[in-house]
Amino acid sequence: MSFPARRSALRALLPGAGVDALLVTDLVNVRYLTGFTGSNAALLVHADGDGASRFCTDGRYRMQAAAEVPDLETVIERACGVGLAALAAKLSVERLGFESDAVTVDAHDALAEAADGVGLHRAPGLVQQLRAVKDAEEVEALRRACAVGDAALADLLAAGGLRPGRTEREVALDLENRMRAHGATGPAFETILAAGAHSAVPHHRPTDAELRAGDLVKIDFGALVAEAQAAGRAALAPGADVAAVDAAARGVIERAGRGEEFVHGLGHGVGLQIHEAPYIGASATGSLAAGMVVTVEPGVYLPGRGGVRIEDALVVRDEGPELLTETTRELLEV
Amino acid sequence: MSFPARRSALRALLPGAGVDALLVTDLVNVRYLTGFTGSNAALLVHADGDGASRFCTDGRYRMQAAAEVPDLETVIERACGVGLAALAAKLSVERLGFESDAVTVDAHDALAEAADGVGLHRAPGLVQQLRAVKDAEEVEALRRACAVGDAALADLLAAGGLRPGRTEREVALDLENRMRAHGATGPAFETILAAGAHSAVPHHRPTDAELRAGDLVKIDFGALVAEAQAAGRAALAPGADVAAVDAAARGVIERAGRGEEFVHGLGHGVGLQIHEAPYIGASATGSLAAGMVVTVEPGVYLPGRGGVRIEDALVVRDEGPELLTETTRELLEV
Repeated sequence: MSFPARRSALRALLPGAGVDALLVTDLVNVRYLTGFTGSNAALLVHADGDGASRFCTDGRYRMQAAAEVPDLETVIERACGVGLAALAAKLSVERLGFESDAVTVDAHDALAEAADGVGLHRAPGLVQQLRAVKDAEEVEALRRACAVGDAALADLLAAGGLRPGRTEREVALDLENRMRAHGATGPAFETILAAGAHSAVPHHRPTDAELRAGDLVKIDFGALVAEAQAAGRAALAPGADVAAVDAAARGVIERAGRGEEFVHGLGHGVGLQIHEAPYIGASATGSLAAGMVVTVEPGVYLPGRGGVRIEDALVVRDEGPELLTETTRELLEV
Repeated sequence: MSFPARRSALRALLPGAGVDALLVTDLVNVRYLTGFTGSNAALLVHADGDGASRFCTDGRYRMQAAAEVPDLETVIERACGVGLAALAAKLSVERLGFESDAVTVDAHDALAEAADGVGLHRAPGLVQQLRAVKDAEEVEALRRACAVGDAALADLLAAGGLRPGRTEREVALDLENRMRAHGATGPAFETILAAGAHSAVPHHRPTDAELRAGDLVKIDFGALVAEAQAAGRAALAPGADVAAVDAAARGVIERAGRGEEFVHGLGHGVGLQIHEAPYIGASATGSLAAGMVVTVEPGVYLPGRGGVRIEDALVVRDEGPELLTETTRELLEV
């Protein structure tokens, strides 16, 4: 979907939120709606169309804004949210929505002062709602990103990159460089590489610990996690309640008496951010829709012994989930 | 300063903020006060001491919290801010401060509901105030980080890494890998590498554009920027007003008729974050103190032609600023 089309889709949500314009200050949401990739920006999406809407960034990004956001009138100012709020009255906005899930308490004060007579109204999550459902082009971009990860891991394995004696840190850097060699700008998150007992730590950061023969994957309960993952994947369908999807996988692990050791949610959306809506967990709310791209990643972690997590990214489809990641889930001996 | 000492220093600020406990939800501030490096945590710092204070993270980080924060009682919960706010009454807190510059409007509602009778009071910037002044150990860590950058750049130059025909992207990746080889975990920010006319873009992102002989640094007004930088450095002193420091450097550029092309502030603090307090700019407020580590980085950018920025990191000292970066500022021909 083009950036103007995304802004049109957002406009369709404004009446439901009871506002005639939305002030978008969350930078990832601004990027989604405009394509702008700098570090300071805001966007006022007016119900009347792009002609009445405004983009703002500061002087460092003047040229970049002209190149990336040629289709919106641009305001150059350091305090972009405040600057656009101050313009709202001139643009005939009466009810200005703001992202109450992104704007801080202090920033809200500044917006309210700048808006000067224009009413500020909470409008959380509107852009995230759009972002959660991916179109064909977005799915293709995610597929390419997953393919880079798969290819880099295949290269690493083929080159004996997991040989005993290498440190976690060496292997993690090797893997990241192979991702770059396949065209990645950089890793989407800090690489987690955990050998032996470290695999009991869900978000372990690579250390200088060396890999030992027989190490890396404690597979005693790998089959259990694989079964839970299959159950979670099978539950992915348009309309499915996210807590029910979590329960489908968690039930497998709970029935085996390992529920206490599955210490996180089943999965989350993936897109511009590595963690984004929808969230799939025991206390999450909402339901899935076709076109959402989500992870399914149950894990069991036994402190001091080891842990297993099996993770895939999939597109929710009417005809059943489509897998974006293709690395083998079989046991690899190193 | 040890983590308990940092928490003691924070306690000394609580009476001035009119609260008897601070709920710290900003993750960088939590890290500063505890050493915790995971992605979800909060901290309640009680005026009565560490015994009455609580740390919170979720189940993924149980082992990491035990290793990194052994000296505080830990609560395991997913919604850490809400979880600790709910404990405030039990800990005899009457006035609970929260970081109004970090907590969103929606999150504030959730905290207020959880705090149930305990008054929530704005207390922005307290931890940032502590972080702005670095002790000897912190300065040493920043010095090592700067030395890694200097060494990586020296290696790059010695290896002919800036030779014509290489792309911006290749050179940027080469530089980052050399930083890693010198012990860096990774770059602190996206590497900016801009050849030729791209140097007119302050935050240019490396592209596939090739370097050409004679390229990279348009030095026509390099002397001007160097003079402005020297003026800014000379103005660094304990007690100096940050807007006056900016003006010292900006005046040089304005008097040369280039004020419009110096499109950003003069500098900023550096520490756990690459941009942090204090901010040195025309509309910034506050004054410098001994032990602050700041950048001084004036720039002049001529769209379509080129730009020059000269940047150093320095420690503010009673006896004059101490330089942390040592790469030559002379013109390098490539």
